[in-house]
Amino acid sequence: MQKKKIITIGGGTGSFTVLSGLKKYDLDITAVVSMADDGGSTGRLRDELGVLPPGDIRQCLVALSKESQSLRDLFNYRFEAGQLKGHSLGNIFLSASEKVTGNFSAGLRMVEKVLNIKGRVLPVTNDNTNLYIKLKNGQTLKSQNEINHNNEIQKIGIENIYLKPKAKPNREAIKKIKKADIIVIGPGNHYCSIIPNLIVEGIPEAIQQSQAKVVYVCNLVNKKGHTENFELNHYVDQINSFFKKPRIDKVLFNTQKPAKEIKDKYEFYGEDLVKFKIKTNLNYEVREVDILSNIKPKYSQVDSISKLRSFIRHDPDKLAKEIVS
Amino acid sequence: MQKKKIITIGGGTGSFTVLSGLKKYDLDITAVVSMADDGGSTGRLRDELGVLPPGDIRQCLVALSKESQSLRDLFNYRFEAGQLKGHSLGNIFLSASEKVTGNFSAGLRMVEKVLNIKGRVLPVTNDNTNLYIKLKNGQTLKSQNEINHNNEIQKIGIENIYLKPKAKPNREAIKKIKKADIIVIGPGNHYCSIIPNLIVEGIPEAIQQSQAKVVYVCNLVNKKGHTENFELNHYVDQINSFFKKPRIDKVLFNTQKPAKEIKDKYEFYGEDLVKFKIKTNLNYEVREVDILSNIKPKYSQVDSISKLRSFIRHDPDKLAKEIVS
Repeated sequence: MQKKKIITIGGGTGSFTVLSGLKKYDLDITAVVSMADDGGSTGRLRDELGVLPPGDIRQCLVALSKESQSLRDLFNYRFEAGQLKGHSLGNIFLSASEKVTGNFSAGLRMVEKVLNIKGRVLPVTNDNTNLYIKLKNGQTLKSQNEINHNNEIQKIGIENIYLKPKAKPNREAIKKIKKADIIVIGPGNHYCSIIPNLIVEGIPEAIQQSQAKVVYVCNLVNKKGHTENFELNHYVDQINSFFKKPRIDKVLFNTQKPAKEIKDKYEFYGEDLVKFKIKTNLNYEVREVDILSNIKPKYSQVDSISKLRSFIRHDPDKLAKEIVS
Repeated sequence: MQKKKIITIGGGTGSFTVLSGLKKYDLDITAVVSMADDGGSTGRLRDELGVLPPGDIRQCLVALSKESQSLRDLFNYRFEAGQLKGHSLGNIFLSASEKVTGNFSAGLRMVEKVLNIKGRVLPVTNDNTNLYIKLKNGQTLKSQNEINHNNEIQKIGIENIYLKPKAKPNREAIKKIKKADIIVIGPGNHYCSIIPNLIVEGIPEAIQQSQAKVVYVCNLVNKKGHTENFELNHYVDQINSFFKKPRIDKVLFNTQKPAKEIKDKYEFYGEDLVKFKIKTNLNYEVREVDILSNIKPKYSQVDSISKLRSFIRHDPDKLAKEIVS
């Protein structure tokens, strides 16, 4: 029997979780990855070297690598001092590969080989582009980094979210999407990682045409200033709005409660759990399941919301089991 | 029949040449590599991250890699802009490996695996140490980088050349040296790459004890301010002075003349060809052979002696053939 062809669509951290779980199954896996990141190490490499954003791609590569834990740790290693401070080795490696081969996809294939990955990792586009949001007050937010840190987006309202320059879709990604058996969208930063895939011309059309079952893995936590008080249907409806006809078949929604002290911490920072209230007249099936990670990290030293966020997260194995079943 | 066990002792560029040739033979190869480098990309990584010097090790790894040319090119790739400018990817990779594993040798083993190398690459020491030269006028030169760029060393004269702090030898290197069939010393920067191996306590003693044939590959060109007008016997006698009893069995000396215009360029910068005049009463055998590289690079745009130097160089294949025979 032919292996099931499964596509994940997302960014770095969320796709890392899904792929880490799926890797353990006998599947033909392709990760389609957002190319809008322009903050941190990735942003510096883009600015200084003119390369395409490596960060999200790196996380997917590491998730799918069949190499030793130590080599995977090495690719995720972040330098802690000097001029390299903040850069992850994998980001630098991908950027050098792009420079040596002369194009991002050729460099990526080289790194796929070094990391001996299961399946493929494909940038949603090979074009150098940036994420923009035009707000309803006329203001334009000009980079994913700026958008990510802006807390007024939801209050003001989004007029338009787009890539500039316009990005052509990666043809390989289009081909894979059309032939897929399952397409998994999310989890991930809604405006910064998920939607940037769906505004690449040709991607939603390919998903529409595909015979695949489309599964959306709903986020666990709403993002302050972006999706506060969002319920399941808000996410699904927004994603469906990028298709001519609603395309999401199934939603995985976590029902397991995180520990109270962790939830309280999140709420202190204005991040609430996603709710699922409206349960009738939905044009998609919702599976309410325990897909929460049990790992309880020590949070006493947590001083930033970004570190905190990773405490409420999906469990890769539970998630993969639900997707495969 | 067991493979011949062959050790090379040197630094980066010279060992790269020898190893690139030897790789093509069915041999058990170990590169023992100087750890005194502290200039350029290597120096910055040492200063900022406190790592051991990766540069010479990287060149030996690339020489022995059985991976594709493109992956080897990638490891040698130097960034050309931004904060990474001047760093080679391989140097950064080795430094991250040291950080992730917690020690240089463990990191190195990981990189050996990634590059799928033939044989082993061993630092002569795992200690963080620096090269010093005390001159006869009492002045002390405090780093390999300073020594490399000082043109007065020969004129003033060397009182002492040493490592500080004192470096313990790499035990694995000692073991390999003692069991070797052939030990190849050189070619390479005499005071900056070759001798820094012989001043690691225990290394000359191990070479002395070994039953191996010791071959010295004599440099082609003398270095301005360091070894001007040196003849073959000057190099051999200086190296032999690090052993209790002279240990060099055989010297490979190139007899092929480089093209006149290249030779003239070198001489313009004060770099003369090594001569071989005193041919009697030698306690070693000299093989006078054509081991010169025929590759004639375009030299019209050459503006620095460091770039120029690489134009008169050994041919890896001719050299390996002589060593193996």
